[in-house]
Amino acid sequence: MLAIDITSASNDRFKTWKKVSASPRAIRKEGFTLAEGLHLAMAARDARVPVRAVILKAGRRDAETDDLAQAIADESTVQGVQTKVFFLDDQLFEEISPVEHGAGIMIEIDLPEKPAADDRIRKSDVLYLDGVQDAGNAGTLIRTAVASGVRVIAASRKTASLWAPKVMRSAMGAHFGAVILEGIEPSEAKTLFDGRFLAADARGGHDIYAEEGWEKGPTVWMMGAEGPGLSDAALEVADERLYIPIESETESLNVAAAAAVCLFEQRRRRLRVR
Amino acid sequence: MLAIDITSASNDRFKTWKKVSASPRAIRKEGFTLAEGLHLAMAARDARVPVRAVILKAGRRDAETDDLAQAIADESTVQGVQTKVFFLDDQLFEEISPVEHGAGIMIEIDLPEKPAADDRIRKSDVLYLDGVQDAGNAGTLIRTAVASGVRVIAASRKTASLWAPKVMRSAMGAHFGAVILEGIEPSEAKTLFDGRFLAADARGGHDIYAEEGWEKGPTVWMMGAEGPGLSDAALEVADERLYIPIESETESLNVAAAAAVCLFEQRRRRLRVR
Repeated sequence: MLAIDITSASNDRFKTWKKVSASPRAIRKEGFTLAEGLHLAMAARDARVPVRAVILKAGRRDAETDDLAQAIADESTVQGVQTKVFFLDDQLFEEISPVEHGAGIMIEIDLPEKPAADDRIRKSDVLYLDGVQDAGNAGTLIRTAVASGVRVIAASRKTASLWAPKVMRSAMGAHFGAVILEGIEPSEAKTLFDGRFLAADARGGHDIYAEEGWEKGPTVWMMGAEGPGLSDAALEVADERLYIPIESETESLNVAAAAAVCLFEQRRRRLRVR
Repeated sequence: MLAIDITSASNDRFKTWKKVSASPRAIRKEGFTLAEGLHLAMAARDARVPVRAVILKAGRRDAETDDLAQAIADESTVQGVQTKVFFLDDQLFEEISPVEHGAGIMIEIDLPEKPAADDRIRKSDVLYLDGVQDAGNAGTLIRTAVASGVRVIAASRKTASLWAPKVMRSAMGAHFGAVILEGIEPSEAKTLFDGRFLAADARGGHDIYAEEGWEKGPTVWMMGAEGPGLSDAALEVADERLYIPIESETESLNVAAAAAVCLFEQRRRRLRVR
């Protein structure tokens, strides 16, 4: 396989990867992110996502990762430039990998253009993340939303960078089937989306199971941070507050578990009607 | 506050904490685990869990953690021995903490006696974890189960140690309201629990929403590892396989999200009947 060895931490390309692996700002500035693992690399290939580079861990290579790297390099060009394969020194690879003991493959993928808030997005179902800071939760939320049929994900400025490698990793390729809008405060969301704004709020409102009709038409499900829950700004734009009736002695659900319950209750109701 | 300073990595108590923080085997051998954070410390206090020691990060102390440490020390004895408070050097604290930048408080708690498989447990609803290795997922699963009213958690040998500090942290105190049975293979589970064994299986079976009646009587919901899903041994003891109807282009749900959907669909059906 035609590939470029990188063995030095002072290599410019490595230095850029390192920045992107650590900083949301660098992701936006450079216009790309890193996705780790065989599963994500295959999902990116299936979704025909522009891959700029494939990064293999030099000491961890096997036939499966080599074949996949070769196939991606053969098929993919970004702005007329053929995708390159790099063999990266093991220790340097670990420095930029979002997981320990991974499969030894990462891809450098172009971020999509910032989506224009067109009419299709306006009338979509939306998952709105209000300050969800944990990368693992944010990724699981994207994965769950897309699996439930909700493909537009919007997030406030306080939410984790949704293109961060750790979020990519935990979403397991769901990014490639989603429209992602970042840096949207609740008041702006209200102007972008026509759907009914539903606040998942453990502190009150209506029982999600007992309440009828909230699933009709497009919805904008709003989920808040662990601990504080939804911000006042989010509650202000809510058309309805809904809670999940959990056991009385227990306190709350993890935000990703709560979203799974809400988004799949929506899906259940809609499937039932068909 | 009466407290003992620990500043050396060669302190025996610290060395034991370090072992317990890193090794499930050490947890079982020593008979205790570490729970990090204000929330867990408060939950343990509310649940009257035996706390052997409170560990404060020496350089991170504030009035809230100090007061809580003092209150736990005043109230708690384990086998006649008064609970001690320790001020632990910052760097040593970080070495044993399951999170970075935490609140600077950990508690050393006695593991409960291994629960006897009595008649009450036999007739309970159960969540059975078949090889779930990720500690964050395992903790979220316990939290979700307890919130859904399922208080018995059983796990195969390949599942993460459910008393590991990272699992404790992610379950947010749900351990204290649960009965936890570890090292139970599927065939043994079948002899311990009377409930109907339900396999959450993305590969087939019946649609969880369309299928009627599975929620009646006690159930044993079985959830498999990310990737491979349920083992053959688990599928063999299943009375029924159920799948969540996700969007066709998407592949699967995170195991903790899938469990949230299944356990709360069970809860919804049972609440509806009342």
